[in-house]
Amino acid sequence: MSARKSRARRLRLGLPKGSLQATTAKLFELAGYNLRFPERSYYPEIDDPEIECILIRAQEMARYVEQGVLDAGITGIDWVRENGAKVHELADLAAPWPNYRTVRWLLAVKEGSHFKSVKDLRGKRIATEVVNLTKAYLRKHGVRAEVEFSYGATEVKPPILADAIVDVSETGSSIRANQLRVLDTVLESTPRFIANKDAAADPWKKRKFERMLLMLQGAIAAAGRVGLMMNVPKRSLPRVLEVLPALGTPTISALADDQWIAVNTVVAEKVVRELLPTLVERGARGIVEYPLAKIVG
Amino acid sequence: MSARKSRARRLRLGLPKGSLQATTAKLFELAGYNLRFPERSYYPEIDDPEIECILIRAQEMARYVEQGVLDAGITGIDWVRENGAKVHELADLAAPWPNYRTVRWLLAVKEGSHFKSVKDLRGKRIATEVVNLTKAYLRKHGVRAEVEFSYGATEVKPPILADAIVDVSETGSSIRANQLRVLDTVLESTPRFIANKDAAADPWKKRKFERMLLMLQGAIAAAGRVGLMMNVPKRSLPRVLEVLPALGTPTISALADDQWIAVNTVVAEKVVRELLPTLVERGARGIVEYPLAKIVG
Amino acid sequence: MSARKSRARRLRLGLPKGSLQATTAKLFELAGYNLRFPERSYYPEIDDPEIECILIRAQEMARYVEQGVLDAGITGIDWVRENGAKVHELADLAAPWPNYRTVRWLLAVKEGSHFKSVKDLRGKRIATEVVNLTKAYLRKHGVRAEVEFSYGATEVKPPILADAIVDVSETGSSIRANQLRVLDTVLESTPRFIANKDAAADPWKKRKFERMLLMLQGAIAAAGRVGLMMNVPKRSLPRVLEVLPALGTPTISALADDQWIAVNTVVAEKVVRELLPTLVERGARGIVEYPLAKIVG
Amino acid sequence: MSARKSRARRLRLGLPKGSLQATTAKLFELAGYNLRFPERSYYPEIDDPEIECILIRAQEMARYVEQGVLDAGITGIDWVRENGAKVHELADLAAPWPNYRTVRWLLAVKEGSHFKSVKDLRGKRIATEVVNLTKAYLRKHGVRAEVEFSYGATEVKPPILADAIVDVSETGSSIRANQLRVLDTVLESTPRFIANKDAAADPWKKRKFERMLLMLQGAIAAAGRVGLMMNVPKRSLPRVLEVLPALGTPTISALADDQWIAVNTVVAEKVVRELLPTLVERGARGIVEYPLAKIVG
Amino acid sequence: MSARKSRARRLRLGLPKGSLQATTAKLFELAGYNLRFPERSYYPEIDDPEIECILIRAQEMARYVEQGVLDAGITGIDWVRENGAKVHELADLAAPWPNYRTVRWLLAVKEGSHFKSVKDLRGKRIATEVVNLTKAYLRKHGVRAEVEFSYGATEVKPPILADAIVDVSETGSSIRANQLRVLDTVLESTPRFIANKDAAADPWKKRKFERMLLMLQGAIAAAGRVGLMMNVPKRSLPRVLEVLPALGTPTISALADDQWIAVNTVVAEKVVRELLPTLVERGARGIVEYPLAKIVG
Amino acid sequence: MSARKSRARRLRLGLPKGSLQATTAKLFELAGYNLRFPERSYYPEIDDPEIECILIRAQEMARYVEQGVLDAGITGIDWVRENGAKVHELADLAAPWPNYRTVRWLLAVKEGSHFKSVKDLRGKRIATEVVNLTKAYLRKHGVRAEVEFSYGATEVKPPILADAIVDVSETGSSIRANQLRVLDTVLESTPRFIANKDAAADPWKKRKFERMLLMLQGAIAAAGRVGLMMNVPKRSLPRVLEVLPALGTPTISALADDQWIAVNTVVAEKVVRELLPTLVERGARGIVEYPLAKIVG
Repeated sequence: MSARKSRARRLRLGLPKGSLQATTAKLFELAGYNLRFPERSYYPEIDDPEIECILIRAQEMARYVEQGVLDAGITGIDWVRENGAKVHELADLAAPWPNYRTVRWLLAVKEGSHFKSVKDLRGKRIATEVVNLTKAYLRKHGVRAEVEFSYGATEVKPPILADAIVDVSETGSSIRANQLRVLDTVLESTPRFIANKDAAADPWKKRKFERMLLMLQGAIAAAGRVGLMMNVPKRSLPRVLEVLPALGTPTISALADDQWIAVNTVVAEKVVRELLPTLVERGARGIVEYPLAKIVG
Repeated sequence: MSARKSRARRLRLGLPKGSLQATTAKLFELAGYNLRFPERSYYPEIDDPEIECILIRAQEMARYVEQGVLDAGITGIDWVRENGAKVHELADLAAPWPNYRTVRWLLAVKEGSHFKSVKDLRGKRIATEVVNLTKAYLRKHGVRAEVEFSYGATEVKPPILADAIVDVSETGSSIRANQLRVLDTVLESTPRFIANKDAAADPWKKRKFERMLLMLQGAIAAAGRVGLMMNVPKRSLPRVLEVLPALGTPTISALADDQWIAVNTVVAEKVVRELLPTLVERGARGIVEYPLAKIVG
Repeated sequence: MSARKSRARRLRLGLPKGSLQATTAKLFELAGYNLRFPERSYYPEIDDPEIECILIRAQEMARYVEQGVLDAGITGIDWVRENGAKVHELADLAAPWPNYRTVRWLLAVKEGSHFKSVKDLRGKRIATEVVNLTKAYLRKHGVRAEVEFSYGATEVKPPILADAIVDVSETGSSIRANQLRVLDTVLESTPRFIANKDAAADPWKKRKFERMLLMLQGAIAAAGRVGLMMNVPKRSLPRVLEVLPALGTPTISALADDQWIAVNTVVAEKVVRELLPTLVERGARGIVEYPLAKIVG
Repeated sequence: MSARKSRARRLRLGLPKGSLQATTAKLFELAGYNLRFPERSYYPEIDDPEIECILIRAQEMARYVEQGVLDAGITGIDWVRENGAKVHELADLAAPWPNYRTVRWLLAVKEGSHFKSVKDLRGKRIATEVVNLTKAYLRKHGVRAEVEFSYGATEVKPPILADAIVDVSETGSSIRANQLRVLDTVLESTPRFIANKDAAADPWKKRKFERMLLMLQGAIAAAGRVGLMMNVPKRSLPRVLEVLPALGTPTISALADDQWIAVNTVVAEKVVRELLPTLVERGARGIVEYPLAKIVG
Repeated sequence: MSARKSRARRLRLGLPKGSLQATTAKLFELAGYNLRFPERSYYPEIDDPEIECILIRAQEMARYVEQGVLDAGITGIDWVRENGAKVHELADLAAPWPNYRTVRWLLAVKEGSHFKSVKDLRGKRIATEVVNLTKAYLRKHGVRAEVEFSYGATEVKPPILADAIVDVSETGSSIRANQLRVLDTVLESTPRFIANKDAAADPWKKRKFERMLLMLQGAIAAAGRVGLMMNVPKRSLPRVLEVLPALGTPTISALADDQWIAVNTVVAEKVVRELLPTLVERGARGIVEYPLAKIVG
Repeated sequence: MSARKSRARRLRLGLPKGSLQATTAKLFELAGYNLRFPERSYYPEIDDPEIECILIRAQEMARYVEQGVLDAGITGIDWVRENGAKVHELADLAAPWPNYRTVRWLLAVKEGSHFKSVKDLRGKRIATEVVNLTKAYLRKHGVRAEVEFSYGATEVKPPILADAIVDVSETGSSIRANQLRVLDTVLESTPRFIANKDAAADPWKKRKFERMLLMLQGAIAAAGRVGLMMNVPKRSLPRVLEVLPALGTPTISALADDQWIAVNTVVAEKVVRELLPTLVERGARGIVEYPLAKIVG
């Protein structure tokens, strides 16, 4: 009996195959998991005996989580909605890494076409990979149009193969490269950690989810942040502290030379460009920036 | 005379070509050496004028160290034994990196075959790259069988080209992929730093070996460990300290706000997953994990 | 009017295409810039709205900076001089990374040829990519020779297609691989941050240059340096401090156990090999080396 | 007016992107067309000013031919039927080249599962890329089951993600590699040359189609055939002729030496292995096999 | 003496490195030479002991042929003229293969710029790899402009880095891809077989050149041509013969069945598309197209 | 019983993995077999149900043919002898393709070493992959030396890791590239078709071998030969015929214009370079060279 029970004590976790895969692998590694993708296998190996992984397309993830084939999975909110899947959303995993940033599903037409807004698309052909999202969007705007499923290369279809498209873009570069004009944003999407509703209600699984998320979110929090150590003359300390961002409480330790104070803090990497010159002006010396792996608590 | 002497003051070091090469390069880099592999050359360049490197197959390393062609080299203990080479083993370099973990030479047969143990292989054909190790193993078990040298692809030989094989495996995936069944482990092996016996007795070379090993082992010690900094309320300190692993003595420094204490320690990366939630529960805040490069002393 | 002004408030920055490109990208990333190279575009995207980047061959950079097409750019001093370009040199960006180290333009002939010095090349054919530098060098030595522009593969030209060459080398390996003998060094070169003279005189641009250089040089300063933390018995402190390099003032903090002192400092990575054994001998324990990202002030 | 007319005198031809693309390119080349695929363009260039090409997924081809966006296209009959497209089928282009041979859409389940026929799939989940074909097939067999669109990797879905699949196979190797068992063949498919119904009725376009097909089919006819030339003693001629396949009328020419006859014929390449030894036995000498490019008429 | 003479009996032949290289290799192979390019060597091996090959950039070929370093070489007429080299042109090797077709050096400006003709470029900056050709062209048109040597990526320079460019194009696709507008064609160029003037006057070398050219031109003549064999009813022969192109005299042989005639001829591949339907209409049957390797005489 | 018999009616054929593999695949294709190498499988698929293929290293082929695991195989005579295998050699398959030409096992030492002949190697260390061949060679010359098995990169071992080597060379380029000097040729080797002795005595297998060899040798015979068709004035026929190589009996057919004769023949490709100019001089016109696929009988 206990053997059976211990068997039940495993999570079946879906990892997204395709554009999200490489970054998901990196996220788990940063979070402290050792994840191996054996060639030609759909069953990644993870160094946590309580987790069993399976590679699944982002498009199909929510369907299998809803059916209970999977306890949880990572996929974009776009595909959750396109599938109309009833799942429990545990966390937004947006992170400053390729394919983990916000993506936009854009309604676009060819540059130089006369379509100015979604209203002008009445009766036209719209090609998209997200047929349901597009139909819902059109309904909301009271526009009837023909929505055709696109098997790929959607961005090259206007104007010959479609009048308009709804296509996804992270940086906008495929929009520009194909000389398209954006009419509207249909949906913004980020990667989410979703769970099956029954799984989310199971106490053992719930606690397992929470501990996993602590690690995943700790790694995401550290991304885009850095540590700063510096020596500050005692009398300059207030002027230095007032420019340090509020979020990280600076650690202030005494030094042997009691005219100086050591300050250690965590700041967003993107403010460093503005912060360092200011710190130097205000008297900080020996400023050392160092990388972080995780931030928790 | 001094020219001759200064010539003698160089180590000739063999680095393993093949599966161990990439990780060996990484190990030396982490240890603080700058190692360059010029294309199509067998003489890697190292930024230590007292060391001369040469790329040699792991299979042949021990032979050349024994002959004194090399002062020292890195190779698996498996090949040292297969060659029956009389060399001085200075250190085990097992590390948590690809090909530097423990590998196993496994006696295996085809799934579904009727062989149950080595005893059943009497008179059968066994294909292997390690003919001597296999013969010694069979002798130990009192089994006579025909051992054939395999030039490669050993794992696909059963059942047509061989009845059994002795083949090496790090993760067991080639065993599974070829539907083999393991009968026994013939040898476990890790990479070793080996030296020629005369070289190991030479005072200058001995001291050089020790300093090199301090760096190499410092890098290995840091792999799989991380630094943790955190702020702890003074009254929670004992409860936090009791869950920190014994091995790294935590550094405890006073803070400006005397209700809080800064704790800095080193822990194994693999315990972080369990440790972080516990630390948060026990009152630690602003926990920052940061990467390490070397641990010594 | 303000629109015009705000337009003027952008720097046009040339980044070198080719051998310097990958390292330049890494340098900007380490300096805290997010730089993207869209495929097939010559306009890298940078996350600073005040900078507009353009990819340009190192050979042509100085010409366009001089003309004012660019406000600033990164290129080798060799190409600045070859073009005879009148530009303002803001900083030497030599760094311990591939292609950012010092390179040498060498006058070389075939091994076994009878040419012993530049004097012997009177009337001979010299192939080179830097025709002007070579002519200036020959003039300085009072030698008349025929200097031919080489479109590439200069190093294979002697002895059939040229009597001598002036070619660039970072490690000397192409010199050796082609059995050439070096007669002289024509020029040593490192990457420079150069600016147009008018741009360097404009107050807004000048301040922008300074802040960029603080970040770029902070990243270069961190390269090849590491942080060291260690615990030292109080009585051993002087002996430890006297072997720590002068350049980084060590931070010395009190510990809970008042017989020990925590020391934190920054040292050049290349001295670590010699320093660590010494520190251990002098009583330091728990020595941890950790990576740095930037050093400023 | 004539300008407008001459504009109308172009065919818009869809070429299949993806698995059929490389072989389609080869087919057109063998048929005497010069077809270039500019990188990153969806508009291949062809050296016939009366044809304009466009790359389109095989899955979407029939839809666009039906709508009249294209005059004609090449795609599998499977996708014509899956789309329920009303188009004119001009020719079957099955040929002995990769992806141009007959493919089969197979209903398959996991080896070892208890499903024996389609009847056992009542109420089960079937994953497939051809939802409509599968539903029609199930209807025909009076079976109700849940058919789910599969975005890819269909063959790895049983037994966890689906109970059965309908997937395509040319050689059966993915069936074997994934340990699946075939229950039935849902559809056999070959590439077809399809035309829009109005285009097929237009006299100019009709004639253009016929001439194109003469070339395409001439190239297909030559594939898998070879020419044979041989010298035969006059008296052996009947015995040689009776083993030559009927389809190619052999050309029999007189030779200078009137005891011998030259025979020239075309045979299927696959019979050559059996034919050559027989011809030698029957007296033919100097048998030369040579390659063909096209067979017409 | 004879040893010296036999040494003199070798041609030193320059083969173009770069865009012409692959097709040159193919041309020599089709011409019956076995040409090997050892990796990293500039000395291709050829199976004619009287020829010694050397790989040289097309840009530099004419210079070395003029100097007599090479007896002969293959390069474009564009680079012959750019170098102002005095060499003997033995043959035009234009052929229907990539990079052996006619290329054009085009004067181009950015689409949307106001430059309408070369006259508008007075005082402007023109970037080009062919500085001398461009200056000569401008002189001819009486236009003074600044011509700057471009190290590459010339096509992306307008409008920022140059006002106009002179760049080479085989298919015009880079012109289109960079949104350029062509003002004029500066030069049309094809590959030429050039010889040193003294070499061309040497009887032994002259005869060697002639025999090489017979083979090279035989291979070029066969490219783009095919053989056609067909059976024709005797009474239809005149109607068939009148549509066969004049250039290849058809071979007409008697057949066993004296109502039929075998016709064998050579035609340009590009007319086959039009010819085959016509031949069928006029009674030809069993038309077989076959590939050719060389046409001579 | 018949089922069992029909099972026995299959040949198990070993194809060489490694350097011979690609050319072996080409040889079988030219011989009219359709051979597919499924990725990661050691069982190539062939379109002859009477043959079962298996990929085996050339080094191990003879061992398995001797044991009867294979009926026949293709491997070099060098490995047959190194293994001392007792097998039946059916044919020499030397052909003018990479790795199918004659290779030489050479005894070589470092350029500049004082070894002049095998006699000088007494007591020295010789590294080689063919230990048995080398020992037999040394015995024959009455020289005792230490022969060490080399796992690879044999050519870089002198002078540090070995005094001499016995290594294989097809073109001699690795000898030159590593600055070695050849002392002697130990063995010349070509690929052979070998059979198990029992298999060669079995009538069904014997006949199967003969028919396979007819095809394989027909393809080899065609390699390096071409067909020539030409028109010759009747009166010039003798002068043309006397320069045509004896081996192919030319086919001479009458033409409509009875002043001319059509000549069709087969010649070695390598004589074409000399033959064509001569034929033109002697009156032949419209000479067409065409490729051949097989020559038999």
